[in-house]
Amino acid sequence: MAKVKKTPRPKAETPKGFRDYFGAEVTERTEMLGKIAHVYHRYGFDALESSAVETVEALGKFLPDVDRPNEGVFAWQEVDEKDTAEEKRGDWLALRYDLTAPLARVYAQHRNDLPTPYRRYAMGPVWRNEKPGPGRFRQFYQCDADTVGAPSVAADAEICAMLSDCLETVGIPRGDYMVRINNRKVLNGVLEAMGVSDEGQQADVLRTIDKFDKVGETGVRELLGKGRLDASGAYIDGVGLAASQAEPVIAFLTSKGADAGATLANLRAAIGGSAVGAEGVDELEMMASLLDAQGYGGDRVQIDPSVVRGLGYYTGPVFEAELTFEIFDEKGRKRQFGSVSGGGRYDDLVKRFTGQSVPATGVSIGVDRLLAALREKGRMGGRVQGPVVVTVMDKDRMADYQSIVAELRNAGIRAEVYLGNPKNFGNQLKYADKRESPVAVIEGADEKARGVVQVKDLILGAKIAQEATLEEWKERPSQFEIPRAELVAKIREILAEHS
Amino acid sequence: MAKVKKTPRPKAETPKGFRDYFGAEVTERTEMLGKIAHVYHRYGFDALESSAVETVEALGKFLPDVDRPNEGVFAWQEVDEKDTAEEKRGDWLALRYDLTAPLARVYAQHRNDLPTPYRRYAMGPVWRNEKPGPGRFRQFYQCDADTVGAPSVAADAEICAMLSDCLETVGIPRGDYMVRINNRKVLNGVLEAMGVSDEGQQADVLRTIDKFDKVGETGVRELLGKGRLDASGAYIDGVGLAASQAEPVIAFLTSKGADAGATLANLRAAIGGSAVGAEGVDELEMMASLLDAQGYGGDRVQIDPSVVRGLGYYTGPVFEAELTFEIFDEKGRKRQFGSVSGGGRYDDLVKRFTGQSVPATGVSIGVDRLLAALREKGRMGGRVQGPVVVTVMDKDRMADYQSIVAELRNAGIRAEVYLGNPKNFGNQLKYADKRESPVAVIEGADEKARGVVQVKDLILGAKIAQEATLEEWKERPSQFEIPRAELVAKIREILAEHS
Repeated sequence: MAKVKKTPRPKAETPKGFRDYFGAEVTERTEMLGKIAHVYHRYGFDALESSAVETVEALGKFLPDVDRPNEGVFAWQEVDEKDTAEEKRGDWLALRYDLTAPLARVYAQHRNDLPTPYRRYAMGPVWRNEKPGPGRFRQFYQCDADTVGAPSVAADAEICAMLSDCLETVGIPRGDYMVRINNRKVLNGVLEAMGVSDEGQQADVLRTIDKFDKVGETGVRELLGKGRLDASGAYIDGVGLAASQAEPVIAFLTSKGADAGATLANLRAAIGGSAVGAEGVDELEMMASLLDAQGYGGDRVQIDPSVVRGLGYYTGPVFEAELTFEIFDEKGRKRQFGSVSGGGRYDDLVKRFTGQSVPATGVSIGVDRLLAALREKGRMGGRVQGPVVVTVMDKDRMADYQSIVAELRNAGIRAEVYLGNPKNFGNQLKYADKRESPVAVIEGADEKARGVVQVKDLILGAKIAQEATLEEWKERPSQFEIPRAELVAKIREILAEHS
Repeated sequence: MAKVKKTPRPKAETPKGFRDYFGAEVTERTEMLGKIAHVYHRYGFDALESSAVETVEALGKFLPDVDRPNEGVFAWQEVDEKDTAEEKRGDWLALRYDLTAPLARVYAQHRNDLPTPYRRYAMGPVWRNEKPGPGRFRQFYQCDADTVGAPSVAADAEICAMLSDCLETVGIPRGDYMVRINNRKVLNGVLEAMGVSDEGQQADVLRTIDKFDKVGETGVRELLGKGRLDASGAYIDGVGLAASQAEPVIAFLTSKGADAGATLANLRAAIGGSAVGAEGVDELEMMASLLDAQGYGGDRVQIDPSVVRGLGYYTGPVFEAELTFEIFDEKGRKRQFGSVSGGGRYDDLVKRFTGQSVPATGVSIGVDRLLAALREKGRMGGRVQGPVVVTVMDKDRMADYQSIVAELRNAGIRAEVYLGNPKNFGNQLKYADKRESPVAVIEGADEKARGVVQVKDLILGAKIAQEATLEEWKERPSQFEIPRAELVAKIREILAEHS
């Protein structure tokens, strides 16, 4: 063989913006997804796992530019047999950036075989080719449920009820969350009532609405009119509307009443004579009454005009789930945890493929944010259940140690034999520590001869080491000698004590 | 806005070689992965989910050629700020093609924080940029467990025991599978005993060994010598060895005895005086005795010299799990189902990154093949649990129907209200059929007034429609009227009858 030039060692690194997940990070997410899937299933939703790779054409939104489609997706061109140096003919493929675009493709492709309405759920990673930042990764999980082919807001109401059930099922109690609903048509009604029909001005008004939390009523009036002197001293140009045009917006922004009825009445006033606005308010009213009939009252679901949702494609109801409890941010300041889920009705997504409008509505739960919230509240991510470690006192008796672990495993106890170099016994105990083992089992030649084993309660041991006096410590009551035949029973006892 | 030229509708298609998975296909796999994870966890293995995207450099094996790395992986080049028209400087990224290469990267990257030995399991999709064929997809699941940093064959034995437990846990009973073990060093010993040291000739001998099943002992002797006239009449050139050189190979290939002891004795004879061969046989003997000590005897694990395993990187023990029951192939011929899992020891994978050899061993379970086997045997993929469908008789009473489903769901019963256009009642029942609903619930204005509901047992109904006479059918005993208050209890009863 010809000598190959030695290449430098590769770097052992995840690509920028990607990360690995270890142990409980993986299993807790799997468990949460399982619980959510269970709720989705009970509501009649069927699982769908579409391929992670789609044609760029089917994904839409991102289309190949001259060189390579690169706006937000990871994309590459297939090699085609007819490729020449000048012309590549292969399809552009890309990793999915969400689970909704693939659903539209799946529904269009399989619509003759699927039931209508089609309720489906999907969970899995999606990829975004964006600049990574702290806590922002280029691969993350989504967990969606959508109903395709149901025009009625009963479908939207159902999804809000399901969202509420999901949150309670994964461990967010009632009172610690709120599902807030709104309707895009109401917003359109407000714009109509204002007499703003220019698309650019409409966008400016929406941007201003988004600032309400920060600048308040006066600020919004200024921004809709001539402009406003910023806190920093900079002057922000206004939208240039007449003062009277601001009234519907202000009425809209301050429409939240003591209950759904009051809010609806305020919204009706805000949209004036707009037909589309009235439709939106009617839909909100219908959703609230359907939810009420199912037992989802104002303690779980509320009409909230401040819910806007970023995505341009929503066409009717929009909703959002917020966690309402307070956490401390990195600077120790109290703040609300915020949104963990959102969704709404998007009636035009399938149309791209079929030419026919297909009504659809759905929700996406941010499982990673939910997990973070539960960890923050100490409701998850506590103890890892480490394995019982059977130490190796005598290398030649590996078969004995393996039969001990086999016995423990057969009894359903997580257990392992130490498989590193057994020479240094201290290393074995250090290993057990690193594994967060609750118990170590020791069987030397002497114990073997006498039919006993030593059992070391490592959790109790750690506690004693921290709290006990030297004398107490010397007594080492955390280590027991027991008959070999009682091993499983004794370890069960210790595990039960610490659980 | 400028008018945009209308683009043609995108095709609603998965890319070539990819597919979607629906309903039970997804949930049965999830369930199987959960069961396997449970076994892995009990053996002390920790979950790891590495990123799906790796640098091409870290994946190794496939290195970027002039244009684009394209041998077997999906790869693309990152856009870099310093890119010019002539020179692209971004990293090449790729989708992982298995779970072992990422493990080597993860271990090298995090080795200071991980326990040693590190037992980890991983499950998830991998991607291969290969020509797709029938039943061969470019995205599929792997489900691996590996131990890194344990040099002893006790680690290999443990993995074989665990593999056996996994198969039984997912529903393959003892007797329907066999874990077969072999050792690469024995093979090397055979080559040494033959006096074949030329790498090309060694490869030729291995290829010949692989043909033993087809050509038998005489055929192997011919192929190792001068050559052989094929069944098709073509002449296959031989390796060109002397007749006596074939003896160790034949002894090796026919070494399987009545029990482990007999096989080991035959293998010792086959490797003659080879030191590496003797090491291999010792390791096999040790594995068999460790497995025996844990209760894994010849009915579950056997030494089998015919296990070779394709991958070049195995350095010691290799193993394979085969399903031994017969199935019928597409032409109606009986055949054995074959291999569903394989693995072995690979001691050089981490070395690429760190320069230091790190012993490792592991197994990969082919979940999709296992699922196919269980479906083939009728042990899975039976009935989908369709939802109870609450029909809509009166569009304006949607709140009533929603409260019925809410009641059913709260009782843990999978249920949904019909969300399509309710005008045509027949369509609602067709929908229930398509959903494989066990029960439809009907509540018209009359029923509502009388405080009753109609319950239609769709499974019984289908049975009657197939088997009953016209008169029996007319009686429609599959539809009952019951008091509204007894709905949950009655549906529970029907579901229990059909389960």
